[in-house]
Amino acid sequence: MIPRYSRPEMVAIWSPETKFRIWYEIEAHACDAQAALGVIPKENAEAVWKARDVEFDVARIDAIEAETRHDVIAFLTHLAEIVGSDQARFVHQGMTSSDVLDTCFNVQLVRAADILLADLDGLLAALKRRAHEHKDTVRIGRSHGIHAEPTTMGLTFARFYAEMDRNRARLRAAREEVATGALSGAVGTFANIDPAVEAHVCEKLGLAPEPISTQVIPRDRHAMFFATLGVVASSVENIAIEVRHMQRTEVLEAEEFFAKGQKGSSAMPHKRNPVLTENLTGLARLVRGMAIPAMENVALWHERDISHSSVERNIGPDATVTLDFALARLTTVVDKLVIYPENMLANMNKFRGLVMSQRVLLALTQAGVSREDAYKLVQRNAMKVWEEGKDFKEELLADPDVTSALSPAEIEEKFDLGYHTKHVDTIFARVFGAAS
Amino acid sequence: MIPRYSRPEMVAIWSPETKFRIWYEIEAHACDAQAALGVIPKENAEAVWKARDVEFDVARIDAIEAETRHDVIAFLTHLAEIVGSDQARFVHQGMTSSDVLDTCFNVQLVRAADILLADLDGLLAALKRRAHEHKDTVRIGRSHGIHAEPTTMGLTFARFYAEMDRNRARLRAAREEVATGALSGAVGTFANIDPAVEAHVCEKLGLAPEPISTQVIPRDRHAMFFATLGVVASSVENIAIEVRHMQRTEVLEAEEFFAKGQKGSSAMPHKRNPVLTENLTGLARLVRGMAIPAMENVALWHERDISHSSVERNIGPDATVTLDFALARLTTVVDKLVIYPENMLANMNKFRGLVMSQRVLLALTQAGVSREDAYKLVQRNAMKVWEEGKDFKEELLADPDVTSALSPAEIEEKFDLGYHTKHVDTIFARVFGAAS
Amino acid sequence: MIPRYSRPEMVAIWSPETKFRIWYEIEAHACDAQAALGVIPKENAEAVWKARDVEFDVARIDAIEAETRHDVIAFLTHLAEIVGSDQARFVHQGMTSSDVLDTCFNVQLVRAADILLADLDGLLAALKRRAHEHKDTVRIGRSHGIHAEPTTMGLTFARFYAEMDRNRARLRAAREEVATGALSGAVGTFANIDPAVEAHVCEKLGLAPEPISTQVIPRDRHAMFFATLGVVASSVENIAIEVRHMQRTEVLEAEEFFAKGQKGSSAMPHKRNPVLTENLTGLARLVRGMAIPAMENVALWHERDISHSSVERNIGPDATVTLDFALARLTTVVDKLVIYPENMLANMNKFRGLVMSQRVLLALTQAGVSREDAYKLVQRNAMKVWEEGKDFKEELLADPDVTSALSPAEIEEKFDLGYHTKHVDTIFARVFGAAS
Amino acid sequence: MIPRYSRPEMVAIWSPETKFRIWYEIEAHACDAQAALGVIPKENAEAVWKARDVEFDVARIDAIEAETRHDVIAFLTHLAEIVGSDQARFVHQGMTSSDVLDTCFNVQLVRAADILLADLDGLLAALKRRAHEHKDTVRIGRSHGIHAEPTTMGLTFARFYAEMDRNRARLRAAREEVATGALSGAVGTFANIDPAVEAHVCEKLGLAPEPISTQVIPRDRHAMFFATLGVVASSVENIAIEVRHMQRTEVLEAEEFFAKGQKGSSAMPHKRNPVLTENLTGLARLVRGMAIPAMENVALWHERDISHSSVERNIGPDATVTLDFALARLTTVVDKLVIYPENMLANMNKFRGLVMSQRVLLALTQAGVSREDAYKLVQRNAMKVWEEGKDFKEELLADPDVTSALSPAEIEEKFDLGYHTKHVDTIFARVFGAAS
Repeated sequence: MIPRYSRPEMVAIWSPETKFRIWYEIEAHACDAQAALGVIPKENAEAVWKARDVEFDVARIDAIEAETRHDVIAFLTHLAEIVGSDQARFVHQGMTSSDVLDTCFNVQLVRAADILLADLDGLLAALKRRAHEHKDTVRIGRSHGIHAEPTTMGLTFARFYAEMDRNRARLRAAREEVATGALSGAVGTFANIDPAVEAHVCEKLGLAPEPISTQVIPRDRHAMFFATLGVVASSVENIAIEVRHMQRTEVLEAEEFFAKGQKGSSAMPHKRNPVLTENLTGLARLVRGMAIPAMENVALWHERDISHSSVERNIGPDATVTLDFALARLTTVVDKLVIYPENMLANMNKFRGLVMSQRVLLALTQAGVSREDAYKLVQRNAMKVWEEGKDFKEELLADPDVTSALSPAEIEEKFDLGYHTKHVDTIFARVFGAAS
Repeated sequence: MIPRYSRPEMVAIWSPETKFRIWYEIEAHACDAQAALGVIPKENAEAVWKARDVEFDVARIDAIEAETRHDVIAFLTHLAEIVGSDQARFVHQGMTSSDVLDTCFNVQLVRAADILLADLDGLLAALKRRAHEHKDTVRIGRSHGIHAEPTTMGLTFARFYAEMDRNRARLRAAREEVATGALSGAVGTFANIDPAVEAHVCEKLGLAPEPISTQVIPRDRHAMFFATLGVVASSVENIAIEVRHMQRTEVLEAEEFFAKGQKGSSAMPHKRNPVLTENLTGLARLVRGMAIPAMENVALWHERDISHSSVERNIGPDATVTLDFALARLTTVVDKLVIYPENMLANMNKFRGLVMSQRVLLALTQAGVSREDAYKLVQRNAMKVWEEGKDFKEELLADPDVTSALSPAEIEEKFDLGYHTKHVDTIFARVFGAAS
Repeated sequence: MIPRYSRPEMVAIWSPETKFRIWYEIEAHACDAQAALGVIPKENAEAVWKARDVEFDVARIDAIEAETRHDVIAFLTHLAEIVGSDQARFVHQGMTSSDVLDTCFNVQLVRAADILLADLDGLLAALKRRAHEHKDTVRIGRSHGIHAEPTTMGLTFARFYAEMDRNRARLRAAREEVATGALSGAVGTFANIDPAVEAHVCEKLGLAPEPISTQVIPRDRHAMFFATLGVVASSVENIAIEVRHMQRTEVLEAEEFFAKGQKGSSAMPHKRNPVLTENLTGLARLVRGMAIPAMENVALWHERDISHSSVERNIGPDATVTLDFALARLTTVVDKLVIYPENMLANMNKFRGLVMSQRVLLALTQAGVSREDAYKLVQRNAMKVWEEGKDFKEELLADPDVTSALSPAEIEEKFDLGYHTKHVDTIFARVFGAAS
Repeated sequence: MIPRYSRPEMVAIWSPETKFRIWYEIEAHACDAQAALGVIPKENAEAVWKARDVEFDVARIDAIEAETRHDVIAFLTHLAEIVGSDQARFVHQGMTSSDVLDTCFNVQLVRAADILLADLDGLLAALKRRAHEHKDTVRIGRSHGIHAEPTTMGLTFARFYAEMDRNRARLRAAREEVATGALSGAVGTFANIDPAVEAHVCEKLGLAPEPISTQVIPRDRHAMFFATLGVVASSVENIAIEVRHMQRTEVLEAEEFFAKGQKGSSAMPHKRNPVLTENLTGLARLVRGMAIPAMENVALWHERDISHSSVERNIGPDATVTLDFALARLTTVVDKLVIYPENMLANMNKFRGLVMSQRVLLALTQAGVSREDAYKLVQRNAMKVWEEGKDFKEELLADPDVTSALSPAEIEEKFDLGYHTKHVDTIFARVFGAAS
């Protein structure tokens, strides 16, 4: 996570200020619950709320931590300075540091997931709009980078929509994975704290109580969370690669929006480089790479070791901030992508009709030619186009073995683009719903 | 995937015989649908079913492929040899190879997922049984590998149950991810094949039609599938590490079942090594490592490139066979794990009462001592236990600063184990349900 | 590792037969050394060599292992069956299983590295040949997939040569990493075996003695080995991606060799797909993904745990067999790559001279125009080419602000291709040596 | 990279100030070389050095970049503000941005490598000192976490020394990998810049000229660099895991240094948790995870795409800063590790002599008992120790089948610890050199 690839709302989730605020809320709500149970005096619980509108002094907390080498104790010490050490003496009672740290981390991840979900909503809206805009913009479909058969730009956007919509469902599931809290004490037995406290705090924070925790919330949840971000990032790369291909000089079917005043290169002013999607390709590698450390975090020793912590202090912000930035950037790219339909047509016609060979092959078969023979007939004429620059349709019309099976009109019909787009509406209905 | 770490049922899913059988079913059902649409003659469709009970000759298909360098054409050629080339001439009409390959791959993954789900059921049953068996078997909870507070062996099994139950839900979701089929033709436009064919074939194979495919089924689905296997594998490692720790000489709270006649070491016959769980630790690394290549497979070029194929030919079998083996092995380990409750008690008592320091700290706070002072009081006496081998309870009883806050009976009460197990039933109900 | 992507010589290294043969050599040489030290009788050492030309019965060894669950004991039992149990009773004396297993594994890795080095030699020869063949074949250089300035196809091959030459050096270093053996007994103290035995066995097997082993050879060596394979595989991907780009329909500057009789697609016979390099792209992902499990193997518990074993039983063969196959396939691709110089020229001229803008910019600056002004001048004319399809040189000649700084002859000179190739010989000398 | 796990010297390498300073040196030295070639006026080259002692205004450069969206142009604009735009007009002539960026990145990586090498020197010194200090401190060796045979703490330190010494050699090689610079112009042809400029700049910066670059320095170099860091990090984890095991309550053979005033836990004051080595375990996961994105960066499109950049802007600082911090922390841990030799002895004696079973087995074999029979004899007595808590030596002395092969004195001798340490000096000489 570096400022260049960050957006403030997501960064704010990971600030010390936000963290201490969440810690405070956990502690304060826990005091309320403890008071309700009669474990601590009501007035002490109420006193903690005196800090409700106080900004915590991060520098002061850091200074205490430098001495005690324990962040939660440092925070509690500072809180006592605000609330009064006598009033604050029941704060954190029965809890262990991880109750605060893990519940806070999950609150942060849930908030991060909510931003990412909103990002996806924005991206989906852009993809849907562009899909409908270019529903009938014909371009050549390519397999192996080689021209295959016609498709439409709308279908390309539609498949990215469908993919991102799946990512939305995955991310919602991932959000649920980490939407738990735990206040179960030293090794998760609730020996020193009643489960009711956990229930109260979790409810206030919008979390479900973790059914069984040790000292920590189990890390398979977080592994799944970060693995999901890795999949979403890989889909970002998928769209980015498509744009990069479309923008390459020889293809030029689309370009990233080129802002006025932007300089593409210090040396070649005419170059319009797809730097945004290249950047996204790199960001995807970063986010994906964080899935493995998150999975390695699952196997903690016994009721916990703290090896996960240094990993999460990094990938918590890094993965969410980077993916948030990537999704937002991708949304802009999609939204403003300059499409060149005329270039799409020019590209498609590069090999004069050769892309229709599949149709011809099929027609020959249906006309009674054996599959093997039809294959040879098509191949024979296709090679003339390929090697001698002939026109495919004309070659077919001039080939007696072909015309003995298909009439000229039948051959002509095989080169009708409408044939390839006839199910676009059907597919759109499958992707966007009937009333799309 | 090597025989040593494989089980036949899962291996069979990935055999050439199974693959060709699925290909056949796809082709035959597609012919039925084409005939129903009137695209091909009914008798040709029916003729394909002649091969229903014929075993395909894998060697023959391989020989044809060696010549044509195309596996689907090789299969279709062989099928025509069985059905008769005239009768078979409408087979595969309008389809592209990927329609067969991708739909088949997903059928295989779905079947693999079903085995893995059954594996998890077996593991969950074992974990549940052992959890209830040792619900009240007290052992020391450890954070950082250091004694913390008492817990029970049943809670350890219960948390593994909860984790594997989450994995079950994840795996079910992953199964749904890949339970789609596509017969959409060259670049996914259905230009040469009616969507009704896809619908029929998918229904027959227990799949949903892929809402929008290109030439291939989108690989974000598979990335999610393999990432999920990586998370499950990481949970396998989590249990394995716990067993390995429990079996280490100085802990010896459990041992893997030691078969009669098994030799632990060629040199040291007394050694009973946790080799099964060490093996599982390694297998987890393998499965986890396959998540990244699967994610890299997402960004295919345009409507498809075939770079995913070599990856999937390996990780398809490797990840599922390895995880199946690992889950089955883990189930045996859990099922037969030899537990030593007496050693658990002995370990817990190693530091004469020190593990109760948290309770004492809490009691002092509740008795009106400030948190800071209570901390110092507990620390002072704890250090005598640690450094001089004293008994913690006796030191507390002899410390006037402590006894001025707590009565001897109150101090005694802090060393009652029942205090730590009082919520075990509550937690069990949360994990296993009220009637567990 | 699957047959489809395997070559027999590398596969043979990982066969049970090879493994047992290496085990045998380790044991037999160890007996010689023990006899020379007077630890065991010379006749017993000699007797072991009776098995020198005997093929070990793998099925028999497997059967014994099924009973004893210990592979080394199974082998030793079988060896005793051949040599005679009385004669064989000193075999393995003072050794531990890992002495045999780890030394054998390293012998296998060294042999695998030797094959990979030979593979690289073949690839380097092909790259060198093609580099010289196309030293002066001009093509457009591209950054961001966008035309930049002219370069030559020879330089492309030359940079791949330089990269693979670095990989050769890396692989040689990696080979040295694993070219050690250890016969140091139970926990590596030589308590039961003299270091002279290790020295003798290692010398006979072409290994250096591991300076300090525990029960195992330290796994940082293997982590480095497999990480290096991951880097080599990434370079394979680098060349593969270049070929795939060159073959895409709109570029068509090269094609993979297309064998007679090969069918590119079941549906589109004209398509020549770069399936070999797409396949290599996938294989690279696989090999790369194995680096992480190898690194996770480093941190074994104390003097060893066996978690590394299941990883290595897989990635040992998988990574080396896959990379061997990939390098051999890549060598064929490079060797037979069909180059289309005329298409390279046609592509370069697509934007009538625009790629020379950098030269013009420089010339303007040198003629005294400020950098900012020169940039604007070039940009102004470039945009006319880009947007209106004008010829860049003609626009410049018609721009008085340009011609006031540069004479027509000077402008003409800026469009001379020789300008861009003038240092090719220099670069070739740097890559291939002065006498290349 | 977060402040918590950072050290200022390494962080400074990655500051904007350092980066701009390196950019400046590249540009200024390039001007000198251009002037020497007569390409630009000498006075303009000299004028650039006016900025030698000027602190660049990072905020100003950022402001220009915000407008131009190009970092190198922004820097050059700011430089012209200092030097004077007329004087500065030849700066960067013939160069492309990547010439500056890539050469700078390599300078940074080389400097980072130098710090890491110094870190390793410090760690090696600590390991060597502790190795000699505890050369003869006997402890039990463990395989599979199970007691095996005696070894010494010095050997443990010595093997970590040998491993880190290998890492030093690897890191030196990795440093050489990235110690290259390139000033080869737009696509690496030197069309617009003489190779002599590159030679001069590289010499001044302590780099070798990249033999063949495109627009960028080839990324296989960086992949190897970061993969090497991943291996070093895995070795950090290896030592960390050993310390964590030694500190666990039941073992307690060592403890991380516990600073006065440090609080181990907010709840359990007696706990001394190995938090530093747990932290190192997590940091190792992070650094290791960055190897894969670095490898994915190798396959850039044609002469370059910029997808590597966002990866490197993150992992450049992240991997080096994190590993620097980890090595420094590990050095402190090793240096101050509190060793408990008496606990080592107590642990070794836990199973009264059983760890000597290998010696007895060997002695029986040497006395003429068949290997199988000797195995059974040892096993029989070992089981009595294991199951009934008997003393192994006494059981052997009382077993007539044993005493018929070995005399009481021979049996006694098998329990002499000196037997296991007799080759420690030999091993130390192998690791540290003869005069160690």
